[in-house]
Amino acid sequence: MAPESRSLSAQDVAALTGGRLVGSADVRVQRVAPLERAGPDELSFLANRRYLNQLAQSRAAALLVGPAFADAPGGPACRIVVPDPHTAMIAVLGVLYPPAVWAPGIHSTAVIGHGVRWEDPIAIGPYVVLGDGVQLGRNARLEAGCVLGDGVVAGDDLHCYPHVVCYSGTEIGARVILHAGVRLGSDGFGYVAGPGKLPRKIPQVGRCIIGDDVEIGANTTVDRGSIDDTIIGAGTKIDNLVQIGHNVHVGGRCLIAALSGISGSTHVEDDVMMGGQVGLADHLTVGRGARLLVQAGVIGDIAAGATVSGFPARDHRSMLRAQGALHRLTAIVGELEALVKDREDP
Amino acid sequence: MAPESRSLSAQDVAALTGGRLVGSADVRVQRVAPLERAGPDELSFLANRRYLNQLAQSRAAALLVGPAFADAPGGPACRIVVPDPHTAMIAVLGVLYPPAVWAPGIHSTAVIGHGVRWEDPIAIGPYVVLGDGVQLGRNARLEAGCVLGDGVVAGDDLHCYPHVVCYSGTEIGARVILHAGVRLGSDGFGYVAGPGKLPRKIPQVGRCIIGDDVEIGANTTVDRGSIDDTIIGAGTKIDNLVQIGHNVHVGGRCLIAALSGISGSTHVEDDVMMGGQVGLADHLTVGRGARLLVQAGVIGDIAAGATVSGFPARDHRSMLRAQGALHRLTAIVGELEALVKDREDP
Amino acid sequence: MAPESRSLSAQDVAALTGGRLVGSADVRVQRVAPLERAGPDELSFLANRRYLNQLAQSRAAALLVGPAFADAPGGPACRIVVPDPHTAMIAVLGVLYPPAVWAPGIHSTAVIGHGVRWEDPIAIGPYVVLGDGVQLGRNARLEAGCVLGDGVVAGDDLHCYPHVVCYSGTEIGARVILHAGVRLGSDGFGYVAGPGKLPRKIPQVGRCIIGDDVEIGANTTVDRGSIDDTIIGAGTKIDNLVQIGHNVHVGGRCLIAALSGISGSTHVEDDVMMGGQVGLADHLTVGRGARLLVQAGVIGDIAAGATVSGFPARDHRSMLRAQGALHRLTAIVGELEALVKDREDP
Repeated sequence: MAPESRSLSAQDVAALTGGRLVGSADVRVQRVAPLERAGPDELSFLANRRYLNQLAQSRAAALLVGPAFADAPGGPACRIVVPDPHTAMIAVLGVLYPPAVWAPGIHSTAVIGHGVRWEDPIAIGPYVVLGDGVQLGRNARLEAGCVLGDGVVAGDDLHCYPHVVCYSGTEIGARVILHAGVRLGSDGFGYVAGPGKLPRKIPQVGRCIIGDDVEIGANTTVDRGSIDDTIIGAGTKIDNLVQIGHNVHVGGRCLIAALSGISGSTHVEDDVMMGGQVGLADHLTVGRGARLLVQAGVIGDIAAGATVSGFPARDHRSMLRAQGALHRLTAIVGELEALVKDREDP
Repeated sequence: MAPESRSLSAQDVAALTGGRLVGSADVRVQRVAPLERAGPDELSFLANRRYLNQLAQSRAAALLVGPAFADAPGGPACRIVVPDPHTAMIAVLGVLYPPAVWAPGIHSTAVIGHGVRWEDPIAIGPYVVLGDGVQLGRNARLEAGCVLGDGVVAGDDLHCYPHVVCYSGTEIGARVILHAGVRLGSDGFGYVAGPGKLPRKIPQVGRCIIGDDVEIGANTTVDRGSIDDTIIGAGTKIDNLVQIGHNVHVGGRCLIAALSGISGSTHVEDDVMMGGQVGLADHLTVGRGARLLVQAGVIGDIAAGATVSGFPARDHRSMLRAQGALHRLTAIVGELEALVKDREDP
Repeated sequence: MAPESRSLSAQDVAALTGGRLVGSADVRVQRVAPLERAGPDELSFLANRRYLNQLAQSRAAALLVGPAFADAPGGPACRIVVPDPHTAMIAVLGVLYPPAVWAPGIHSTAVIGHGVRWEDPIAIGPYVVLGDGVQLGRNARLEAGCVLGDGVVAGDDLHCYPHVVCYSGTEIGARVILHAGVRLGSDGFGYVAGPGKLPRKIPQVGRCIIGDDVEIGANTTVDRGSIDDTIIGAGTKIDNLVQIGHNVHVGGRCLIAALSGISGSTHVEDDVMMGGQVGLADHLTVGRGARLLVQAGVIGDIAAGATVSGFPARDHRSMLRAQGALHRLTAIVGELEALVKDREDP
């Protein structure tokens, strides 16, 4: 099927997503678009009450909606009701926007070191540089300009977008996606220092180990270990411009949003979620399933399951309560000082 | 005129800047330097009271000064009085430091895909890789190692410093400047996740659209949209190491300082200014002309024209007032507890 | 000595580190590992009480320990007692993990401009691009894909990991290490702006000057000066993803952790330490030896020797005291309001 002819009927969408069809089964969609921009050959979705006000004006052909919006008045009559529109959309996008086909092969400009091994098929783009002893699994795709140092090892289905650099000592699991400008295995920030003395560099000799099914965003950096290893657990997803320090262990299935930083030797357990710009000091433990909200500044251990925010990060509700109290107290600070004065000097 | 012979008389500077000359018209300057370092063939400037104490010792040949400093005692007698020395300096710098001349041409090592089109003159540096169907306007300059994915489109006068990567799906306006290591159009951070379950990637199929006259700083990342597009409005300037998430819309003429991050689907209206390390949560609206001060952590909508700071970000003056109140209350917290105790248990 | 045969006896370790040997002198170690993972041919260390609970189970052959742990019960009996195990480890790592040997030479794909000069031996990797007039000292190593603009000058022993970009106007001292993706000398963030007006770019014509013995982490950016220069003092170490703005002067021997940002024209004196995600506003002075703790947001001058945290950054102990007071006040805010009400309206 040529790209221009891809389309799905509402019936197809319901079948793909396991959804319940409301309205005409033969409405057809060719693309996906947001509610306010979708046109008569596009599928849209409504998952968040925040966008309910855009429903009535939407010209979308059909909608994926959560159960709460199955009968919401106005807007497109053709709806496919699913438990979670975001999950349902994954199946639809896979059909309407199939991943680009890639052609195996080694570009003539690639520089390949001694003893490099791989399993076909793979695709090595222009100006890629592979050091001695690099090992790649099948279906590896290294786009333009990637540089893998001596001895870097990766599993099957590695996808490196352009300009990824992996230092020697990096080990990468299966099905890993590295976006443009990712740096893995760079030296950690380790010095012996004191006022007036030139800081002395501590050689960084540990590895940088990336688990299966990890995705790492553009320009993110993950240092190698100093003596221990730096480890990113399986299924963890890291956004753009994140810094992971030396000897950090991140568990499985964590989500770490952009511009967050984890200082050396801190351990983050499984299923932890971090908002953007979260910062963790060094040598801490963040318990399983904890949620660190945007800009949280963590300078002590965090219990499993906790939700924290602010600096120093503490329980989010208690942070909000304290902020509310401060607001009320600010309004009466003069009176409170007067009361104290009265008491001391009646 | 050869570079070594460029110079301007004080009279020339006054003419270029529309300023009022005080002192000798034939003092000559060849370069520009800060007040404390300028020598007898250099022009300096005084725009900020903070640096007034450096005036008397300055050896500059001449000064661009704001009206407040026209008669400030001490220092160089030759002054050109202008409404805004920074604006005036733009004209002077353009003459004393003319932009480097560039030679059109396609370096022999550039890898050019099928169906790439451009308008001459352009300059394509070494190791540049252009995917199939890339379109560039006239005067495009792509420095060493830039990688533009299939179908990337850009207007006239594009200047990419070395190592810029644009993913397929990126559209760039006219007169855009992209600094070294900029990544445009990378996948947004979108997963369907839950504790104990491997996060499932939501395909990111939207575009990354950069308006006219945008400048983007080194190593900054702008994600493509998920289903909607990510849009940077005309005339907006973005500093180094900034993260712009998927589906974000930034209006025109915004200034976004370094290490700031905007989370997915947040809309920032025209003329907004953000200090460094500002963070915005997802799905918010920041109103026209708002000012978000350094490190502000925004977790709710911001009204047009507001000035906010702190976490959670609120009106800046009210934040400062609350900080002041907290300081005063900290000094009397024991007494206040005693008062409460007295009341409960008299 | 072939890599596989490198090993040290406990006696050797004591001699290398100037330590006092407790236990058998002929225990041999081949590698270094953390306490909980070290095996019977590995040296470990104990420097922090936090890890004392791992001592008893450790299977390490020998330990470098601080004086406080010389006689700590349990665990490996062979110990080398030193004043500072981290310092001692530097000597040991240098022997057990000698730096990789590098082969001098110019890769055939390197693009070398007119008038480039260097002192042998040097190593120029694949796809490196050197502009006209670049000058390099002896022992320079430029790994794959590095780009140095016209006229960049560097001292001896420069080590650039892959993909470093230095703009024209960058000057680098001796023994400098630049990690992957570092950008030096990019334009600062300088515009003349106003609501509704297209911001006008102020040409950035200053230099970016990096002192001797500086190390800069992956993807960090240092802007050139606008009119003044940007200067990083000798011996200063900068972590990954840090932003240094135009005209910033950083003194000698500072340590700046990841994701920190210094805004334009701020001066940081010698021996200052910054934790991760610290932000400094523009035109400030940070005094010698100050410590800025993780996420500190600095919007005023900081005195020499001060330790600050929080936003707006203030004395760390006073910040903690205020946080404690706020916690106590939050618990009684209703009662305090009632007291004020009683007083006003008895």
